[in-house]
Amino acid sequence: MIFIDACFGKDTPHTPVWMMRQAGRYLPEYMKVRQKAGDFLSLCKTPELAAEVTLQPVDILGVDAAILFSDILVVPLEMGMKLEFVKGEGPQFPKPVICENDLSALDINRAVENLKYVYETIKITRSKLSHENALIGFCGAPWTLATYMIEGSGTKTYSKVKKLLYTNPRFLHAVLFKVTETLKLYMEEQIKSGVNVVQIFDSWASALEDSAFFEFSWRYIKEICAYLKSRYPHIPIIVFPKGISGYLDKIDGDFDVFGVDWSTPIELAKEKLGHKYILQGNMEPARLYDKNAIKNGVEHIVSIMDARRHIFNLGHGILPDIPVENAKYFVDLVHSLTKK
Amino acid sequence: MIFIDACFGKDTPHTPVWMMRQAGRYLPEYMKVRQKAGDFLSLCKTPELAAEVTLQPVDILGVDAAILFSDILVVPLEMGMKLEFVKGEGPQFPKPVICENDLSALDINRAVENLKYVYETIKITRSKLSHENALIGFCGAPWTLATYMIEGSGTKTYSKVKKLLYTNPRFLHAVLFKVTETLKLYMEEQIKSGVNVVQIFDSWASALEDSAFFEFSWRYIKEICAYLKSRYPHIPIIVFPKGISGYLDKIDGDFDVFGVDWSTPIELAKEKLGHKYILQGNMEPARLYDKNAIKNGVEHIVSIMDARRHIFNLGHGILPDIPVENAKYFVDLVHSLTKK
Repeated sequence: MIFIDACFGKDTPHTPVWMMRQAGRYLPEYMKVRQKAGDFLSLCKTPELAAEVTLQPVDILGVDAAILFSDILVVPLEMGMKLEFVKGEGPQFPKPVICENDLSALDINRAVENLKYVYETIKITRSKLSHENALIGFCGAPWTLATYMIEGSGTKTYSKVKKLLYTNPRFLHAVLFKVTETLKLYMEEQIKSGVNVVQIFDSWASALEDSAFFEFSWRYIKEICAYLKSRYPHIPIIVFPKGISGYLDKIDGDFDVFGVDWSTPIELAKEKLGHKYILQGNMEPARLYDKNAIKNGVEHIVSIMDARRHIFNLGHGILPDIPVENAKYFVDLVHSLTKK
Repeated sequence: MIFIDACFGKDTPHTPVWMMRQAGRYLPEYMKVRQKAGDFLSLCKTPELAAEVTLQPVDILGVDAAILFSDILVVPLEMGMKLEFVKGEGPQFPKPVICENDLSALDINRAVENLKYVYETIKITRSKLSHENALIGFCGAPWTLATYMIEGSGTKTYSKVKKLLYTNPRFLHAVLFKVTETLKLYMEEQIKSGVNVVQIFDSWASALEDSAFFEFSWRYIKEICAYLKSRYPHIPIIVFPKGISGYLDKIDGDFDVFGVDWSTPIELAKEKLGHKYILQGNMEPARLYDKNAIKNGVEHIVSIMDARRHIFNLGHGILPDIPVENAKYFVDLVHSLTKK
């Protein structure tokens, strides 16, 4: 597979490309299946339908990899937290984790067992996906999940979880530890079910100052990487800690690909990390509003990466109001400009 | 004034300290005046009361500078845009700027004239403030204001303004140009009314990729700096483009102090900009939840800056649920640890 070769730094006929949230609302085909499923969570929990939307972008856009359709929050859900998707307000845990009792009530093994709809989605998808295309499994990073679990919803200030971090770090570490243990086993099951590569999304890495990022987020990501690498060295690991361009000097760990968000100049990522890791990214998603902006963006990144040690992607998820035609233009352009 | 000396890199008996949003909800004395005023906007528009809350943190906490109590959005408001502060939802412009006609309806001179309640607040405050303490005037950066004016409210995705940026950059530049012209005159009036230093807040700088930041935000900030510096060289200028740690290499312009947000390691800011500019910042505001966290944070920053070419501040606004006692502990600690 071109995608897997690229993750390991091997030469490939072109730079592989995919997009975060590529199975999403900008695709009319996705919206149809979503309506059939009822709500978002039902779609995640119905393997036949989840597999269908996972495969759509490969067929429609020609991306080199499919990413499992699911949500990072199914993990706390199946650990035992009630999860609601409130329209217009995003996901919410009405009973967030506040004290030791809340944490004790969460169950690692139950989560790994209950998440079987994810494993089933992977099996169906892998059986239908061409052998040319990789299937990417994923999870949220422990810090990002713990933040949701403690805040109870999205947050602008992160004040609950940060208050905990500075006043009761031991309890926050206990939450992070339990989530990390769950994620190790969960990712292991994803691999056993057939994913070819995994990505760890730390969407809220940017909420943490330098020292706090390394103590409360990065060390747990590294733990998951070490666990998986020692058992499945042939499965590439992609990490995506969003918005930490100030901390690149101290990034290390046993993974293969570093996901660069759009706020980190690709030149800077290459200088700091390009010799150690394959880079993934990082076109500004809003460039997909305009073909000329796409062209300038792709050309710039190609001029820096020179189609080596690179996987093309957006620097964050595709926006829901992007024309499908533009997304396809992006994918085609990457393929043609990086062809060897 | 110690504060002004520090802005120009002169030796001072201690490192001056203030906090963004220091006149704010965490202070019971502020809440009393706020209630008296009715709503937030009425407080901004009532010079006697706005001056009163401006002075409170100097008296209560002993900070070295007062910052004018106002809001960055009074500028688009007085240019002619209806502004509403909806409880729990933040500020909103119900009729955002969408087309040329919307932009034409906005008036530079009317804004500069109508903002006289700000100039009056400055005059009252300056007359009551000790000559030891500086009074900081401020405005939002053109990019941040234009974003509010185009999005109509706070936004997570910035999709309207970014769509404009990549599909119709000329119109966005026209908006930015008009806001910039207004801000030059507005800041000039603030200086004539008595502020001793000015700060330009680019709270949403972090919404822009590298190239877009320099084209749509930074060049307009530099224009305002150049305008003011050529006329008022004795007034220090502080810039605060938030969340751009990846772009520090390309920062230049005619200002005195660079405000470092908490997500930019102070070591990195010192390495990239410390020789050219005085640095302001950058303690993580959430550290104020805990005295031990305050102590570690202040000690770390002092160890890097060594009480030279530095103004102490938080790396973003103080949070509304911080105990006043902790804020005072922070200010006192900075003074004692940097005393010469």
